[in-house]
Amino acid sequence: MTVPKDPFAIATAGLTREVPLVPALSALLFIDVQNFSVRREGGEFKGQTPEEIESKYGPFFAHLEASVIPAMQRLQAAFRRAQIEVMYTNIESLTRDGRDRSLDYKVTGFHVPKGSWDDKVIDELSPGDDEIVLPKGSSSVFVSTHIDYILRNLGVKQLVLAGLLTDQCVESAVRDACDLGYLVTLVTDACATMTPERHENSLRTIKGYCRQITTDALIREIGQG
Amino acid sequence: MTVPKDPFAIATAGLTREVPLVPALSALLFIDVQNFSVRREGGEFKGQTPEEIESKYGPFFAHLEASVIPAMQRLQAAFRRAQIEVMYTNIESLTRDGRDRSLDYKVTGFHVPKGSWDDKVIDELSPGDDEIVLPKGSSSVFVSTHIDYILRNLGVKQLVLAGLLTDQCVESAVRDACDLGYLVTLVTDACATMTPERHENSLRTIKGYCRQITTDALIREIGQG
Amino acid sequence: MTVPKDPFAIATAGLTREVPLVPALSALLFIDVQNFSVRREGGEFKGQTPEEIESKYGPFFAHLEASVIPAMQRLQAAFRRAQIEVMYTNIESLTRDGRDRSLDYKVTGFHVPKGSWDDKVIDELSPGDDEIVLPKGSSSVFVSTHIDYILRNLGVKQLVLAGLLTDQCVESAVRDACDLGYLVTLVTDACATMTPERHENSLRTIKGYCRQITTDALIREIGQG
Amino acid sequence: MTVPKDPFAIATAGLTREVPLVPALSALLFIDVQNFSVRREGGEFKGQTPEEIESKYGPFFAHLEASVIPAMQRLQAAFRRAQIEVMYTNIESLTRDGRDRSLDYKVTGFHVPKGSWDDKVIDELSPGDDEIVLPKGSSSVFVSTHIDYILRNLGVKQLVLAGLLTDQCVESAVRDACDLGYLVTLVTDACATMTPERHENSLRTIKGYCRQITTDALIREIGQG
Repeated sequence: MTVPKDPFAIATAGLTREVPLVPALSALLFIDVQNFSVRREGGEFKGQTPEEIESKYGPFFAHLEASVIPAMQRLQAAFRRAQIEVMYTNIESLTRDGRDRSLDYKVTGFHVPKGSWDDKVIDELSPGDDEIVLPKGSSSVFVSTHIDYILRNLGVKQLVLAGLLTDQCVESAVRDACDLGYLVTLVTDACATMTPERHENSLRTIKGYCRQITTDALIREIGQG
Repeated sequence: MTVPKDPFAIATAGLTREVPLVPALSALLFIDVQNFSVRREGGEFKGQTPEEIESKYGPFFAHLEASVIPAMQRLQAAFRRAQIEVMYTNIESLTRDGRDRSLDYKVTGFHVPKGSWDDKVIDELSPGDDEIVLPKGSSSVFVSTHIDYILRNLGVKQLVLAGLLTDQCVESAVRDACDLGYLVTLVTDACATMTPERHENSLRTIKGYCRQITTDALIREIGQG
Repeated sequence: MTVPKDPFAIATAGLTREVPLVPALSALLFIDVQNFSVRREGGEFKGQTPEEIESKYGPFFAHLEASVIPAMQRLQAAFRRAQIEVMYTNIESLTRDGRDRSLDYKVTGFHVPKGSWDDKVIDELSPGDDEIVLPKGSSSVFVSTHIDYILRNLGVKQLVLAGLLTDQCVESAVRDACDLGYLVTLVTDACATMTPERHENSLRTIKGYCRQITTDALIREIGQG
Repeated sequence: MTVPKDPFAIATAGLTREVPLVPALSALLFIDVQNFSVRREGGEFKGQTPEEIESKYGPFFAHLEASVIPAMQRLQAAFRRAQIEVMYTNIESLTRDGRDRSLDYKVTGFHVPKGSWDDKVIDELSPGDDEIVLPKGSSSVFVSTHIDYILRNLGVKQLVLAGLLTDQCVESAVRDACDLGYLVTLVTDACATMTPERHENSLRTIKGYCRQITTDALIREIGQG
């Protein structure tokens, strides 16, 4: 594969978002892959009995465990081998009482105190030695962190997104990143939401804002397949 | 109706987004209700024959004309009577050649030159004498204009949204406004997108980010029904 | 002159801000060169007699007329010849009653109604046919307009600043632009403030945030001298 | 003292910035009071002999130790007693290699690796149990952190600033905070820069952007004197 020299020239010249990654200009961001939202014991599901959780979210957790988390792990390993920046953002307040959260998270009741188990990236995806983890207090990482500033300083122009929920925090990140001028790549099988229907609806809704690719195809694209 | 004194105290105390508007803290924003996207002759549909347009978008235009635009007109009139700020944002470049547009709009091919017919709010909703109209060059008005700054200066804390497309520019505005701490009210029948299915999917997806209300109910709420 | 290919590689490799302009990556921004602040009849001086104005600001106006405005004109002409983007920002509200201005401008009493004579760029520097003019409602153009977004869409990485007041709106723009990652060039004799002492103090204070160059040297640098 | 109910009504009605603090709407921010910049052994002075440091910065350090740091300590104690939010921002990268820093800090050579001694608030001002500390990678805390978002979530409208350097990071924060609509209070004797002349020049330059008050007067104002 010939690596393109300038993804923006290609994008605008060709009126296309289908531009392969240039490793030095790329970053991979995992969204909310943390105990709070990925574990049956996570804070998002607190106050429900194991039976209620199984009945409401059983297929969601099963899909995460059998398919989505393994895809994320392959992705993380491949991006590290290709020396592409790997980043993480988690729902986490800057305080233990959560007073710095968005009004929305206060109303919703999302509260992940600073330093809690809930705010940790799941063990299967543990952040590496000098990788960046950004605590966020709202749905879109572009609103409640200064990630746009960090990506600029890193020289990132192509942003790869994975995580959950597809139609909530991930979709908000896709929309904002696209508007801000990033070429966004969404890894479809490394994302999940509560039902397959919601997942598919979200992918259709945002297909004008990003290119959509599978984990394995993306790993091949960066020469690690 | 007893007008609440502090919508935020209510919202956080009651863990609810169902807070009636306080007129002095509110604004109504119409999104992309402009010739480009609302008229069969608009730039968004350029290059297609009348037959193609009718076949693809006939029901969409019929719904706009019979129902959505009249709802918007009632809304605009009622908010003006209640002396609530009415604002508009349109897809429009700051230049005639569109070089200031987002990368996304360049790739998509959305080009509304400054000062063109396409960039005007439709006649049925003409902006009033000293109302604010913001040209935008991306989907979310919060990314490509400084509306957050303006709303802050106006003292607005409750933002009412109407316009189109429900699942594109309107939904992006709902998400960003919510994350930024506004209490968002979406006027469901004063929004539209290409199909009823997409409209309903969008409303379901973002129901955690805004309260959803009909035009007539909202007009009654502000005492103009 | 050999034009550098990548100003950022040079800047970071050489630990220097002294990087010549790459025309395609550059823009010139004139700040507040408008009737409000440049003319004895301008709104900024309203309520004072001609004698008071002459006694307080006489040397300032004389310096503007004899030296600063002519430098700005040479700069504008040279940048246009070199086909480098020329932009303008003026103090101007989006409304006639100024309700969208910053709290600071309300307290200060700075009020330039939309569409007034005060808000126009002075005739000597009239904006060209498709050049961008941004109304702003606070000191820093980076806070009260979305210029950062526009510069990104234009591909600008080196920002040239001129205008007034050196130690107020110009200095705020230098600071924010520098922090945001632009390589900032300040044209020292195309800026002015109320006294030479204040001008010199400002240049010293911000010398770590920008390179400082004279009009003539900069015109030679872009091959128009 | 009668506490004003709405600082903004007072500010705009009275055309004044001289509005006493409303504790529930206020926060105190210490800027760069960290080992890197306050200690003779700090990274900012690395590579210089003790003699060079003493000869160049001796009076600066003596002033910090005898006067500025004690003032900061009194301020911190009084604000805590008054239950007003106390915050801190330090120069600190999110990584050990500093790749996320601003271009400006890379060029300047300011490098405070994550987790280093240099990035700690000095012991005399140790952050309390659940107080917020924001790492920043540029001069203005409003550019390189999302403090504006946090202050909004906290309901802060009056921002008190102290720290160093008066004419560099502190002045940038004053300017941006003012433009963003905060009522800014600068504690003049709880700030410092390299020389008294630079300190006085800065105070004069930004007197239109903030009210300026001494530590003791401010402590009395919040009822803790």
